[in-house]
Amino acid sequence: MSFPGTSDRARSIQASPIRKLATLADKAKEDGIHVYHLNIGQPDVHTPVEFWDGIHDSTPEVLAYGPSLGIPELRDAICGYYERSDIEIERKNVLITTGGSEAVMFAMMATCDPGDEVICFEPFYTNYNGFATLSSIKLTPVTCNVENGFHLPPMEEIESKINDRTRAILVCNPNNPTGTILTREEVESLADLASRHDLFLMADEVYRDFTFDGRTHYSILELPGMEDRTIVMDSISKRFSSCGARLGDVITRNAELMSCLVKFGQARLCPPTLPQYGAAKIYSELGRDYFDRMIKTYQRRRDVLIEELGDIEGIFFQKPEGAFYATIRIPVEDSDLFSSWLLTDFNIDGSTTMVAPAAGFYATPGLGKDEIRIAYVLNEEHMRMALRIVKQGLEEYNRA
Amino acid sequence: MSFPGTSDRARSIQASPIRKLATLADKAKEDGIHVYHLNIGQPDVHTPVEFWDGIHDSTPEVLAYGPSLGIPELRDAICGYYERSDIEIERKNVLITTGGSEAVMFAMMATCDPGDEVICFEPFYTNYNGFATLSSIKLTPVTCNVENGFHLPPMEEIESKINDRTRAILVCNPNNPTGTILTREEVESLADLASRHDLFLMADEVYRDFTFDGRTHYSILELPGMEDRTIVMDSISKRFSSCGARLGDVITRNAELMSCLVKFGQARLCPPTLPQYGAAKIYSELGRDYFDRMIKTYQRRRDVLIEELGDIEGIFFQKPEGAFYATIRIPVEDSDLFSSWLLTDFNIDGSTTMVAPAAGFYATPGLGKDEIRIAYVLNEEHMRMALRIVKQGLEEYNRA
Repeated sequence: MSFPGTSDRARSIQASPIRKLATLADKAKEDGIHVYHLNIGQPDVHTPVEFWDGIHDSTPEVLAYGPSLGIPELRDAICGYYERSDIEIERKNVLITTGGSEAVMFAMMATCDPGDEVICFEPFYTNYNGFATLSSIKLTPVTCNVENGFHLPPMEEIESKINDRTRAILVCNPNNPTGTILTREEVESLADLASRHDLFLMADEVYRDFTFDGRTHYSILELPGMEDRTIVMDSISKRFSSCGARLGDVITRNAELMSCLVKFGQARLCPPTLPQYGAAKIYSELGRDYFDRMIKTYQRRRDVLIEELGDIEGIFFQKPEGAFYATIRIPVEDSDLFSSWLLTDFNIDGSTTMVAPAAGFYATPGLGKDEIRIAYVLNEEHMRMALRIVKQGLEEYNRA
Repeated sequence: MSFPGTSDRARSIQASPIRKLATLADKAKEDGIHVYHLNIGQPDVHTPVEFWDGIHDSTPEVLAYGPSLGIPELRDAICGYYERSDIEIERKNVLITTGGSEAVMFAMMATCDPGDEVICFEPFYTNYNGFATLSSIKLTPVTCNVENGFHLPPMEEIESKINDRTRAILVCNPNNPTGTILTREEVESLADLASRHDLFLMADEVYRDFTFDGRTHYSILELPGMEDRTIVMDSISKRFSSCGARLGDVITRNAELMSCLVKFGQARLCPPTLPQYGAAKIYSELGRDYFDRMIKTYQRRRDVLIEELGDIEGIFFQKPEGAFYATIRIPVEDSDLFSSWLLTDFNIDGSTTMVAPAAGFYATPGLGKDEIRIAYVLNEEHMRMALRIVKQGLEEYNRA
């Protein structure tokens, strides 16, 4: 008997570098080791009670399909959220998606056919790779580096990557996995580039509320004259610590593009109905106070990161500006091996730490091998413990 | 200023024929008209209380990402559900998806690259079109027709459509939109065809529990020696009247294929966390009694359909064998116009009925123009009212 083969895209899709060591972590847990998860952007912050209230208030007799574009209450609440930042969008500009994941996939598929290219900046959120493979498009990486805090390289370098298959420029701002926030000037330069080469400008702004040291975030939705080119991909996962809800949205003022997205939305019927009521309530009821509290929480965790790792010899990173990630150069040759070793061969008093090797966040082979991504999503006490494990682990690893 | 264009796949994706008249229905409702929805497979059956219990028992402090493959409790409960039908599958064969929609898309993408072909039988579940367009694959239709109750044409006819780009045969069994259940012999013939041509055999078995007049359903999972070729796409939406939960699953015993599907699953992180606890509970606690009640309910509704429409001159359809759909030939030239007219120009005592024009369920242009799909998802009284509107509507439409 012969066996039918899987598709090329199935064979070539990247295993998640965030989750690839999960088997080792499971094994450690089976052996009674406590594992601190700094490998994944899963905050320990409680999901707001308003979310649960919204769900419990709306428990229906029949859990029916909702509208393909999402419930109007949520779409309107999102408009209200942007209005509080003086960004004007209308209900018709917002399509609710199943997580930010679907938002990214829809944006890629609506702008690109198989073989088309999207410019992105490495290191980048690794799951972009998966969606690119699934939709048979090519991500063209422009390399950023830790020395200048992962800000953009000169525009000429970016421009040199544009060819006749290029359809869009994609940024994640504030950035996962680096914590870098693009300046207004950087965003405007990209807009200029997109205009001159007739490209879409897509921004994953999932972390837009998490900005440190008094920084403000400049959204691509604020760019004048770019209404037909800009596509925002968003999610409630991090903003409201509700990763498991699987709710996000795509925002565009380009009516033709939105009419295509609506058909994509119809094809998969609707996003999850139940959490939308919770999301509508949190978007309506939580404002500046909530975000100020979140900023304070994550900024404090970032400071703990700097306190614990900042002065280790051979470690190098810039102070993260936002989000809750840092990409850190560590004094090892292969961070993949080190990250695995932490799970299989090291613990302090029965605890160890899981981090994400950074190579998977780069598209260019060989880059990021001496870097790890840390998600500072645990409370201060746990962060300190987890980071001391990394620190002592490094010492012992390099002695061995 | 020039505008960047959307992708070919975005422009060419089909608007849902199930939802395309939604604007007209909304308008009718605004004008105070009650609309009976026979256009969409949204049952009025209450979601089982066990579902809500499962959710309320598991409300966490942090609504976190779940496992990419779904929670083990649900995967095991699904194995238990099949075991009660003497079908043996293991946890490792089951990947939880975001609705049957994602199950279909994952199955298509894991077996096909852009340009590859999948044989399917028209009329077919129209959303297959959307997923095929999104994943840039081609659906090759084999036409079935109302005269023989939409059963399969001779195998030679199917075989003649297979070429070197063909990667899979896709069935929906019991069928949406026809209500036809493939006989064991039909399923075995397709398996033979798939083996001889080294193809995957994919079955959407979402309606497998809804079989009428004592019929039994023969699953592709029961085919001996086909373990590496068969992929089942499934969902809780219809089985447990929880369409808005967005939970489904892909089942395959092909380990290589599953390892690819796992990476697809990781790319989108996880299916919705919360409803999985509800789904695990209903799969564990609802068995034969529940399904017997459902079969009785839907079979009675089907009989009402036959009573109300069966003897109208010019209408033709075979007694549906399962699921809760019928594809019906009606005495009009263009069912799209008739379906629109029902919403815009006709009502009885302030009520009208929305049906789905069938052309969108065919891939071959021109077919299905004199057919509609009816979903018999409303209670007996509402079904009678809704169908009388269709009946009298037809008379008046043809008099005009």
